[in-house]
Amino acid sequence: MFDVTSLKYDANGLIPAIAQDHLGGEVLMMAWMNADSLRKTLETGQVTYWSRSRQSFWAKGESSGHVQKLVELRVDCDRDCLLLLVDQIGPACHTNRRSCFYTAIRDDAEVVIMAPQNPSI
Amino acid sequence: MFDVTSLKYDANGLIPAIAQDHLGGEVLMMAWMNADSLRKTLETGQVTYWSRSRQSFWAKGESSGHVQKLVELRVDCDRDCLLLLVDQIGPACHTNRRSCFYTAIRDDAEVVIMAPQNPSI
Repeated sequence: MFDVTSLKYDANGLIPAIAQDHLGGEVLMMAWMNADSLRKTLETGQVTYWSRSRQSFWAKGESSGHVQKLVELRVDCDRDCLLLLVDQIGPACHTNRRSCFYTAIRDDAEVVIMAPQNPSI
Repeated sequence: MFDVTSLKYDANGLIPAIAQDHLGGEVLMMAWMNADSLRKTLETGQVTYWSRSRQSFWAKGESSGHVQKLVELRVDCDRDCLLLLVDQIGPACHTNRRSCFYTAIRDDAEVVIMAPQNPSI
């Protein structure tokens, strides 16, 4: 039986969680979880992070509708990082881009490589 | 011109860096960088992390030969996380598996879903 407390959390009780599109493989975002938010995520099947700025649960998409349905949870060899394979509804980024990693460094300059999606999508 | 000091580092001067296979899209590992290791990575084209346990540069693959050639650097919307698109030579994980995320949680149990590669690969 998988025990969320068996993972390695940092001094603040947090573990980084990478969200990846389960079909296309796109890395969508990275955020943080504590043991309780991971428990919620596994129980509900919808990804809930821990907001460090608000110091509260952050049910992804709660206000925007851009939820992440958990398809599979993976843990790394050190048990101190999570990979969430998700079904991302709409954009993952608060800028309405599919991924938060929309800025590339090319020829020593920052280039925006992704356009915002129509908010209704 | 891209300035590594324009990123947001944590209280220890570190920023998480996700390494993704630039072709297959597989998430290989997550480790940490400081501004100097990112500078080295950009200058040399080979990924160098910062080892928190050893408190020293960690030129990925230096001893194993399993280097990561940087194909493209991306930064996220908050400028506090990096995505490294890499050409991974051999396995990324110290267990000789392609990715560090070889453990899946399925039916509430941990399942190893990836075998170690032949070390000579």
